[in-house]
Amino acid sequence: MKRNVLIIGAGGVAQVVAHKCAQNNDVLGALHIASRTKAKCDAVIASVHEKNAMKVPGTFEAHAVDAMDTAAVAALIRKTGAQIVINVGSAFVNMTVLDACIETGAAYIDTAIHEDPAKICEAPPWYANYEWKKRDLCAEKGVTAILGAGFDPGVVNAFARFAIDEYMDEVKSIDIVDINAGSHGKYFATNFDPEINFREFTGTVYYWEDQQWKETSMFASGRDWDLPVVGTCRAYQSGHDEVHSLAANYPNADVRFWMGFGEHYINVFTVLKNLGLLSEQPVKTAEGQEVVPLKVVKAVLPDPASLAPDYTGKTCIGDLVKGTKDGKDVEVFVYNVADHKEAYLEVGSQGISYTAGVPPVAAAMLVATGEWDAKTMKNVEELDPKPFFTILDRIGLPTRVLEGGLGGKDKAWNA
Amino acid sequence: MKRNVLIIGAGGVAQVVAHKCAQNNDVLGALHIASRTKAKCDAVIASVHEKNAMKVPGTFEAHAVDAMDTAAVAALIRKTGAQIVINVGSAFVNMTVLDACIETGAAYIDTAIHEDPAKICEAPPWYANYEWKKRDLCAEKGVTAILGAGFDPGVVNAFARFAIDEYMDEVKSIDIVDINAGSHGKYFATNFDPEINFREFTGTVYYWEDQQWKETSMFASGRDWDLPVVGTCRAYQSGHDEVHSLAANYPNADVRFWMGFGEHYINVFTVLKNLGLLSEQPVKTAEGQEVVPLKVVKAVLPDPASLAPDYTGKTCIGDLVKGTKDGKDVEVFVYNVADHKEAYLEVGSQGISYTAGVPPVAAAMLVATGEWDAKTMKNVEELDPKPFFTILDRIGLPTRVLEGGLGGKDKAWNA
Repeated sequence: MKRNVLIIGAGGVAQVVAHKCAQNNDVLGALHIASRTKAKCDAVIASVHEKNAMKVPGTFEAHAVDAMDTAAVAALIRKTGAQIVINVGSAFVNMTVLDACIETGAAYIDTAIHEDPAKICEAPPWYANYEWKKRDLCAEKGVTAILGAGFDPGVVNAFARFAIDEYMDEVKSIDIVDINAGSHGKYFATNFDPEINFREFTGTVYYWEDQQWKETSMFASGRDWDLPVVGTCRAYQSGHDEVHSLAANYPNADVRFWMGFGEHYINVFTVLKNLGLLSEQPVKTAEGQEVVPLKVVKAVLPDPASLAPDYTGKTCIGDLVKGTKDGKDVEVFVYNVADHKEAYLEVGSQGISYTAGVPPVAAAMLVATGEWDAKTMKNVEELDPKPFFTILDRIGLPTRVLEGGLGGKDKAWNA
Repeated sequence: MKRNVLIIGAGGVAQVVAHKCAQNNDVLGALHIASRTKAKCDAVIASVHEKNAMKVPGTFEAHAVDAMDTAAVAALIRKTGAQIVINVGSAFVNMTVLDACIETGAAYIDTAIHEDPAKICEAPPWYANYEWKKRDLCAEKGVTAILGAGFDPGVVNAFARFAIDEYMDEVKSIDIVDINAGSHGKYFATNFDPEINFREFTGTVYYWEDQQWKETSMFASGRDWDLPVVGTCRAYQSGHDEVHSLAANYPNADVRFWMGFGEHYINVFTVLKNLGLLSEQPVKTAEGQEVVPLKVVKAVLPDPASLAPDYTGKTCIGDLVKGTKDGKDVEVFVYNVADHKEAYLEVGSQGISYTAGVPPVAAAMLVATGEWDAKTMKNVEELDPKPFFTILDRIGLPTRVLEGGLGGKDKAWNA
């Protein structure tokens, strides 16, 4: 049994995490949120109180912290008495926050891989470059660290585990498909920080096939997917965290990730990339000013948080898993559909932040109850998916299954 | 008879002007070139000598000058003894250079309208905002000032005058069509300074129809043109200098300007414009740096001068003029075709700079011989076009005519 949560970060996903922690503070205990700018944490807490989100009376405090400073994070963990840390800060702070958890014994939960700001797309498997180097230390010290517990990575890893355990003797392939069929009404915008968003698409696309790493490039490999609710959507093979752990845990399966993009997004992205405007390397203007083009693109694009009020439509994210059962081919599609407008009405965020922010709170609740308090480092597919789905069903992200694969019989996962 | 030429500017067009002046220095006398950076002038002169372009032994000297400083320009005119100034500096220096000519009595020739850096697209007619305010003063002092003597504006104004004088009793419409059917082999590039190039397309498109100014916007009005040599090309109504003087001189004619753009150019332009990346207003990055997006776009695009060596293909620029003769409808297309590769081999520049840089040298030669030494301010259509065409035929830009309009009988203008 662990209690008291410290949230690191105060962006769009942290906002969702804060609301969901508040809605479940009977299980989670005292709540704290910290980022470099305390005012952003104050604003998140104010929005929680505005929605009367606290389930039972309790603490929710804001703090300032430099998450790149392990000693400062450790001191804050001790000061707040947090036994669970949910890290939804920038992709650059994972390792310093994890170190602080190892030092203090607090459980660590994050939603995305660690990144070095100076490097775009390192060698696979990505987790081996940073997080997995601390695996033995976590086991030795009995520290629970749950990696990649957002939606993708996170829930989709649990989808894969569930499909394999329930429906197969042997798995042959896992294709994760992420479609945002929503509309924000702007000419162009990214759903996350544009800098992070574009970094995801400018590197090599790694995937696992025939028991080895293979490479392609963004938008080179596209396919139409006929999905529940959102209909037929085109998605392209993209690099994504969960491929790197699923390939390690299911080395005999092909593992690929597909992200949906409309022609308009691809066109704008392609123009910007080909002109050099997505570069993180500085250029010099005729007047001699040194400027990083990507930071200027970020400055002219809408703030992702500003999209929420007008965002409409749905997301569909799921795993098409193929294998064999009793010598026969089987396939199953495990998925969730979320709604942008409903997310905004509930927690003041758009659907993309919602799907990313709800699952780590479910993971924290399972750590609190002991069901996922593994006392070592785990990726999500290494944990029992059923209690995770049970909580997600209740707190806003229900899991459904198409038995027989796309076009198959639609049911709740536990029906 | 005027002699000795001072060229203001050292960019791509100035390079062409320098070569053409050198090739005709028997008529033009001593040559001088000045810009803010003397080294750029030295480089232009070095390229002239490399091609052995000087027709007869003579002077060609480089100078540093701030063309925004009238007194400095006047002092340089006096020091060099220049009686003709060809201004091919930035669009922002016309008025200071013109004032220096008025002060010293030197003849003034330019190739584009004056612009205020802080204003994009002022009220029509553009010439009335700046240049024409000095018309009475030029007449009073007997100073020759020839405005807009490049290709467009410039040669196309003479095309209109010629078509009307030779073929019509009455003119009904003048449609100027500018097609660059060349290829520079880059993903995207502008043929002039991107800052000036994009400024031309982000403002209101003014045209003259039914004896009044009308407005449209860029790419809103497009039409396919079946042209000699380059074939069928799509061109869009654009704002351009020559519309503003031709409408004053031929108020009963409709006057429109059409510029050719491929779908790729329009797509890139539209993406950049809609994202706000063509703005001349500063934005602030997340790190607090103030940056003008347009200057960053300029920094990532190829330097227009760098395009010349690999530029292939042709330009076609002409006037479709319609009117009546002896009570019957008549039409004629007066045009020139230029070749990028030939321009590069002759003067080291691409075809767009070539077509802009050759005509002001022809105008300077006519001022030198007295034929165009008007002792007042003139737009090109107010001068006799025939001696202009005669020189242009000889120095690289021959004039041709389709009698009967597009698809009509093709002949040299004087055949």
